[in-house]
Amino acid sequence: MSVVKSTLSDADLKTVGEALKGALVDLVDLALVAKQVHWNVVGPRFRSVHLQLDEVVDTARQHSDTVAERCSAIGVTPDGRAATVAAQSAMGPVPEGWIKDVDVVRTMVDGLGAVIGRMRERIEATDEPDPVSQDILIQLTADLEKHAWMFQAESA
Amino acid sequence: MSVVKSTLSDADLKTVGEALKGALVDLVDLALVAKQVHWNVVGPRFRSVHLQLDEVVDTARQHSDTVAERCSAIGVTPDGRAATVAAQSAMGPVPEGWIKDVDVVRTMVDGLGAVIGRMRERIEATDEPDPVSQDILIQLTADLEKHAWMFQAESA
Amino acid sequence: MSVVKSTLSDADLKTVGEALKGALVDLVDLALVAKQVHWNVVGPRFRSVHLQLDEVVDTARQHSDTVAERCSAIGVTPDGRAATVAAQSAMGPVPEGWIKDVDVVRTMVDGLGAVIGRMRERIEATDEPDPVSQDILIQLTADLEKHAWMFQAESA
Amino acid sequence: MSVVKSTLSDADLKTVGEALKGALVDLVDLALVAKQVHWNVVGPRFRSVHLQLDEVVDTARQHSDTVAERCSAIGVTPDGRAATVAAQSAMGPVPEGWIKDVDVVRTMVDGLGAVIGRMRERIEATDEPDPVSQDILIQLTADLEKHAWMFQAESA
Amino acid sequence: MSVVKSTLSDADLKTVGEALKGALVDLVDLALVAKQVHWNVVGPRFRSVHLQLDEVVDTARQHSDTVAERCSAIGVTPDGRAATVAAQSAMGPVPEGWIKDVDVVRTMVDGLGAVIGRMRERIEATDEPDPVSQDILIQLTADLEKHAWMFQAESA
Amino acid sequence: MSVVKSTLSDADLKTVGEALKGALVDLVDLALVAKQVHWNVVGPRFRSVHLQLDEVVDTARQHSDTVAERCSAIGVTPDGRAATVAAQSAMGPVPEGWIKDVDVVRTMVDGLGAVIGRMRERIEATDEPDPVSQDILIQLTADLEKHAWMFQAESA
Amino acid sequence: MSVVKSTLSDADLKTVGEALKGALVDLVDLALVAKQVHWNVVGPRFRSVHLQLDEVVDTARQHSDTVAERCSAIGVTPDGRAATVAAQSAMGPVPEGWIKDVDVVRTMVDGLGAVIGRMRERIEATDEPDPVSQDILIQLTADLEKHAWMFQAESA
Amino acid sequence: MSVVKSTLSDADLKTVGEALKGALVDLVDLALVAKQVHWNVVGPRFRSVHLQLDEVVDTARQHSDTVAERCSAIGVTPDGRAATVAAQSAMGPVPEGWIKDVDVVRTMVDGLGAVIGRMRERIEATDEPDPVSQDILIQLTADLEKHAWMFQAESA
Amino acid sequence: MSVVKSTLSDADLKTVGEALKGALVDLVDLALVAKQVHWNVVGPRFRSVHLQLDEVVDTARQHSDTVAERCSAIGVTPDGRAATVAAQSAMGPVPEGWIKDVDVVRTMVDGLGAVIGRMRERIEATDEPDPVSQDILIQLTADLEKHAWMFQAESA
Amino acid sequence: MSVVKSTLSDADLKTVGEALKGALVDLVDLALVAKQVHWNVVGPRFRSVHLQLDEVVDTARQHSDTVAERCSAIGVTPDGRAATVAAQSAMGPVPEGWIKDVDVVRTMVDGLGAVIGRMRERIEATDEPDPVSQDILIQLTADLEKHAWMFQAESA
Amino acid sequence: MSVVKSTLSDADLKTVGEALKGALVDLVDLALVAKQVHWNVVGPRFRSVHLQLDEVVDTARQHSDTVAERCSAIGVTPDGRAATVAAQSAMGPVPEGWIKDVDVVRTMVDGLGAVIGRMRERIEATDEPDPVSQDILIQLTADLEKHAWMFQAESA
Amino acid sequence: MSVVKSTLSDADLKTVGEALKGALVDLVDLALVAKQVHWNVVGPRFRSVHLQLDEVVDTARQHSDTVAERCSAIGVTPDGRAATVAAQSAMGPVPEGWIKDVDVVRTMVDGLGAVIGRMRERIEATDEPDPVSQDILIQLTADLEKHAWMFQAESA
Repeated sequence: MSVVKSTLSDADLKTVGEALKGALVDLVDLALVAKQVHWNVVGPRFRSVHLQLDEVVDTARQHSDTVAERCSAIGVTPDGRAATVAAQSAMGPVPEGWIKDVDVVRTMVDGLGAVIGRMRERIEATDEPDPVSQDILIQLTADLEKHAWMFQAESA
Repeated sequence: MSVVKSTLSDADLKTVGEALKGALVDLVDLALVAKQVHWNVVGPRFRSVHLQLDEVVDTARQHSDTVAERCSAIGVTPDGRAATVAAQSAMGPVPEGWIKDVDVVRTMVDGLGAVIGRMRERIEATDEPDPVSQDILIQLTADLEKHAWMFQAESA
Repeated sequence: MSVVKSTLSDADLKTVGEALKGALVDLVDLALVAKQVHWNVVGPRFRSVHLQLDEVVDTARQHSDTVAERCSAIGVTPDGRAATVAAQSAMGPVPEGWIKDVDVVRTMVDGLGAVIGRMRERIEATDEPDPVSQDILIQLTADLEKHAWMFQAESA
Repeated sequence: MSVVKSTLSDADLKTVGEALKGALVDLVDLALVAKQVHWNVVGPRFRSVHLQLDEVVDTARQHSDTVAERCSAIGVTPDGRAATVAAQSAMGPVPEGWIKDVDVVRTMVDGLGAVIGRMRERIEATDEPDPVSQDILIQLTADLEKHAWMFQAESA
Repeated sequence: MSVVKSTLSDADLKTVGEALKGALVDLVDLALVAKQVHWNVVGPRFRSVHLQLDEVVDTARQHSDTVAERCSAIGVTPDGRAATVAAQSAMGPVPEGWIKDVDVVRTMVDGLGAVIGRMRERIEATDEPDPVSQDILIQLTADLEKHAWMFQAESA
Repeated sequence: MSVVKSTLSDADLKTVGEALKGALVDLVDLALVAKQVHWNVVGPRFRSVHLQLDEVVDTARQHSDTVAERCSAIGVTPDGRAATVAAQSAMGPVPEGWIKDVDVVRTMVDGLGAVIGRMRERIEATDEPDPVSQDILIQLTADLEKHAWMFQAESA
Repeated sequence: MSVVKSTLSDADLKTVGEALKGALVDLVDLALVAKQVHWNVVGPRFRSVHLQLDEVVDTARQHSDTVAERCSAIGVTPDGRAATVAAQSAMGPVPEGWIKDVDVVRTMVDGLGAVIGRMRERIEATDEPDPVSQDILIQLTADLEKHAWMFQAESA
Repeated sequence: MSVVKSTLSDADLKTVGEALKGALVDLVDLALVAKQVHWNVVGPRFRSVHLQLDEVVDTARQHSDTVAERCSAIGVTPDGRAATVAAQSAMGPVPEGWIKDVDVVRTMVDGLGAVIGRMRERIEATDEPDPVSQDILIQLTADLEKHAWMFQAESA
Repeated sequence: MSVVKSTLSDADLKTVGEALKGALVDLVDLALVAKQVHWNVVGPRFRSVHLQLDEVVDTARQHSDTVAERCSAIGVTPDGRAATVAAQSAMGPVPEGWIKDVDVVRTMVDGLGAVIGRMRERIEATDEPDPVSQDILIQLTADLEKHAWMFQAESA
Repeated sequence: MSVVKSTLSDADLKTVGEALKGALVDLVDLALVAKQVHWNVVGPRFRSVHLQLDEVVDTARQHSDTVAERCSAIGVTPDGRAATVAAQSAMGPVPEGWIKDVDVVRTMVDGLGAVIGRMRERIEATDEPDPVSQDILIQLTADLEKHAWMFQAESA
Repeated sequence: MSVVKSTLSDADLKTVGEALKGALVDLVDLALVAKQVHWNVVGPRFRSVHLQLDEVVDTARQHSDTVAERCSAIGVTPDGRAATVAAQSAMGPVPEGWIKDVDVVRTMVDGLGAVIGRMRERIEATDEPDPVSQDILIQLTADLEKHAWMFQAESA
Repeated sequence: MSVVKSTLSDADLKTVGEALKGALVDLVDLALVAKQVHWNVVGPRFRSVHLQLDEVVDTARQHSDTVAERCSAIGVTPDGRAATVAAQSAMGPVPEGWIKDVDVVRTMVDGLGAVIGRMRERIEATDEPDPVSQDILIQLTADLEKHAWMFQAESA
């Protein structure tokens, strides 16, 4: 079923589609992981970290929606199902159960670092084929790098 | 690591914990599935269904947060990670790619039906051990049954 | 035409459906009566009673919508038409024309009393068959009893 | 009990009072009927029609309040009780139970048409005796005719 | 200094200008009188009357601004200075000092009655020469008559 | 294709339809012209005029929507396409390029004057056939005359 | 009729009462004068001055309400009737009819200057007898002096 | 003085009245204690704990109002006076003066634990006699247990 | 434990600290007493008095927070515990149970009078040692005296 | 008249100016066309399409303002007059009169497709000469492509 | 150029002008320093301190605007330029680069302490010459001392 | 102390860090200068320019925060201290004291021109090393150029 007629060439569409679909998986998992540790964090910094994680969730949810709808807009079907996310996310595994606040901070520094690394590759990959999609990736990377700074700053 | 001292007996805690953890998984997946078809739906009813699905997402996200924090409040650690959700959800699998509006409606009728069935069992199971947790399950079931009616009404 | 597949057994559905349909009629009439005296009240307490009645109208309208949609959600068709309401309401008849503020207060005390009495029976009747519907009836009864206290307090 | 001293002559008061009291009955029933089908509508256009009907309810409720208080302001007692509405409304009878979306649209086209016809007569009747009441009738007729257009447009 | 070129004939302009300038004086004084008794009212109904008067003030201030700017818009200079208002207002004199709540209500019934009487004459006078100005007078009279009903209702 | 059944006679419909369609064209062009000079105005009063013009745009856009939907409501199809507007508008031509603030003010005084003149004819023409449409024209003329006063006042 | 038992001695009450009653008259007239020129101003700075004057009106109305209710609170009856204001205000007379923007600015500089001069005397007079009333006078003088600066700045 | 006619039997009324009056005392004191330590807390976590305590105050104040008005609604007079609260509260004594953040957290864990224990007994006691009052107690206990979890989580 | 280094001398600190701590106790009790009678008031003026008391509660709560944090800011530990309030408040005792509206008004007139008397002494005492604390006391006294006027006005 | 000193070279200015002026014309016409069919659409999907079109209008109006003011900011005079728009727009002609909902969807798919094609050329053309203008074109193209996807999705 | 005619004598003007100009410099620098450490803070308390500092910035910016406009209002020209601020501020120098959270807290305690000391001198200096300016200084000092308490509390 | 691990190479980091730190200094000074002339402007256009300058302040403050936090996010410490700003800003010196409105406009045209020139160099410099930082610079330059156009337009 061919629904949306893309304004991109087939080759460009393949590159851009992969970049966006990869970004979607990373963002959906970022939201799930941030919620998971939002609920399970313990330790003296509980309240501060608990609130900070919900800001990460907001960022991840908003950008995941933008990225998925950008997929559709260029004619590529987005995939944000649990199994896909579990299989392909850049976020490392999070342990089950209570997790100390310092471990949460480290988890977020590492997870955000991995996701940002992949986003920077996607920015580069989409530069030629589609500046419109690239702009979306640039803006979300700015937000992710801001969150990453904050978690690093509090582990200094 | 024992963090939260439960006011429930061990047996009650086990029953209630299972009910809440199960509810969490179903609600997280309901949000993921609703978003997935929100992005991939096509057909003459696209806009109407697209908007309706976002209301399901809002419902599922709000209740999943309430349920997960209720887990923590009684001393049971919530688990909403992608892999757990992919493995244990009551929602059936959704196909990849574009999906016709009539198929979306049927998918939601079936998925909501399955989740509601399990929620009603959890309401019954928690009646004796913890009326506080039960009340949370009762209220979210009311919302889910309202969404289920609407999808059924539009497939009449 | 069978539209919504109920999760309740036939017997339970009959009990719960009757409770909800009865509640709907009482709430719709409560709103109509409260508006009627809101427009026709006279006397030194005019302004205070006039405003208080609009809060009753808001309560009655919100709960009547919730109750009617709960009917639909369990597969029972709600009936809030003028003739049905005129025939079945628990609210007693209100005289035509201007009505003194003290008479308005007495009318509301009596009318709310009658409706609350029937609501308490419905709470009891729905306890076993459907705790979800019962919860809706419990919450609206709390609001009605609060209004009833206020009208009683000002006739003390 | 003579409460409000009218600035209109007795003859004018009779004409204007009848026009406003008739308008009140039609508007209260319009709200009741629109709610009734808002709850009972089924079919592929369920969601769209369900939402559209609540806009009719808002319009009817706001104008019925304005009209009823205009009655009081000129010294005529408004009557919006269920029995009065059931007996005198211009809206035709609505069947009990589920109702298909196309039938809802037709019901609204017919009902609004009948109400608008009577409103236009009232506008004419009140022109000489009371331009203030007439202005209220003119403005609500504009809103009713807008709703009527929309239901007609979607049955085209 | 001729500033605004009127679209009305000289004769019509004279009629409409007088109507609007008269309405302005009455509305400015209505606001001043309502504030005066808002500050000086005493008695068991103090709070209710105190709040009700501020709604009269809001009505009077909004309409006085509309009427004054309508003057300017047709090329007639509005005059709302204290001395003009003191000399020409339809509102009768208010005594200095504390004033009992029942006296406030009577004062408002009388004052509003006098103003409304003059407004109805202005509506008639402007019908032919300028329906645009007339419409403004009709709408403010509706609001004044609503306030007048309420004060009468509470003295019943 | 006959969509909306008009409550007006054929002769009245023709008169009212012409009045509304003419008003629509003038209002759409008023918005386009006001935006054009909003962007191109220069001179010491730049900021004040720039802001004032956006208020004209808001007025024109809101009333054009009301007028167009009134057309549809009485069964006449509105026409607000660029070519129609370019051919039939009462607004005179605006020069290309930067335009001095004093010239903007004069342009608006002239343009509004022309549009208001035609609106007053339409108010007269619709008086008998349709007071509902007339009321819409009266209210928008009040707003246009208020804007016209302001531009005249600042060129005094 | 002695209503409010003052916490001030008779001598202090007389001093403070005079200060507050004088302030009330000046503030009510400031609002009336600012509105008068708000409606009648013409000239190239029309729009800027027109808007600025409404901010003066807001300031004057808010502080007049505070001052009048302070009168009542210490047991002195406030007097803001048109005739009192016309007789006792510090604001000089404003001419009837259109008024050039530069004349408006000068009128406001002079009027505010006169009022501020009297307010500073009242601040001094109330220092000993009632610091609570004095604080109200201090805060409104700060606002008046800010407005006075702005009108002076634009006449530089 | 018998004011409100209860719909409960005398025996039920006694049980429910005791439960509600006890809950009121605990909630009023919870608000007072949380404010006391909100003002006196010191230590590195000052800001986080200071803000967290105000959320406890909000919760306690809202529920205390609901519980007290529920007392009145069933015809039992609520008692939230300082002496009653000081004598009967479940919250332990709080020391005077500055209090370290870690001690605040422990104080809140203990105080909330004691209050929650009593609330759970009240939920059980009211189950049969009055499900409406029980529902209020269930909902406030959910909120208290959420706060209790958070303070425990940050002392882990 | 010395936490906050005061900028006041020891003698001034003692004077100011006593004034603020006394004000805190009075304000906390004012809120408790106003809530107590808000819940227990009966009589024809029930609704008006019930609402008026909640405005007193708002005033008292806001100022008690400001005063308590001012204590901390100058290095004096505030004390708003139930036992302290019960022992030291200027508010007289309030009887248990339903209380007639006229008695509520008298209770508030007396209670506010006593508190205001003590506040005026505190304003005088803090004038020299700390004008910053004095300004806070002045502003809250203005609000208390406004409430006191209103209760006196309605008992006139 | 040279008003704004551009920071671009003459050649770059010509390229960028043409791109922006072309974009302006397309966006203004997109708003006019979307409004035209918003008013004239008929068919079962009337309400859904009617609302969707107003979102297109919002998008087009906001971006047209940004683009026109960007023209001015680089020293090129924008041209959004009706005649210019009628002559140069990429949107194809729309027929007069009622238009079926399916035809509206096709019209929007085609019109948006044509505009997007030209926008992509403008993005490419402005890349070197002015990344600031390019960024504005990129962001509006993202929005247009999102709308285009939605209309395509509902014609699938 | 003499712009604003001061109501103060020359001697008073000199004293008050110096006080206000000094306050302005301190407040502008307080905002700059708070922003500087808001951006550069690191350590486990990063998030809490980062947010707290933005509240200091808000306080400082609002009061600096009030103080500067008060300067102008009395006829003294305010000076908040970077060089002036760098030369005259009471805030000590802040090091370049990352700064540990504990060092931030100490920096703020010291900086606020120095500024408050100077503000208290200004309050004393302005008491006689201008109570209006003094009131502004009193209110901002209350806010600064509240911030100072919080930073001290968290270094306890 | 190395806090934030940059994802950029050392060479890129140096280039991007310089661009961002330079932009920060210019934006902080733009806000300080705009405030300085906002307070000191005099002349007939006082009010318009006074308000316009506060919009520049808002723009400058928002972007300076974004730029400074972007510095931190890539691991470069931002420096917005008064002395740094005084030494390195692109804004030319502003004279002390009152400043005529025409001189303010020229000052802003020149100052914005200088800052924009340096921003365009930074956009070019960051294109290769970091498109994320470049995007931030592009967006703020668009806003600055919009302000620059407006000041130029009003000096035409």
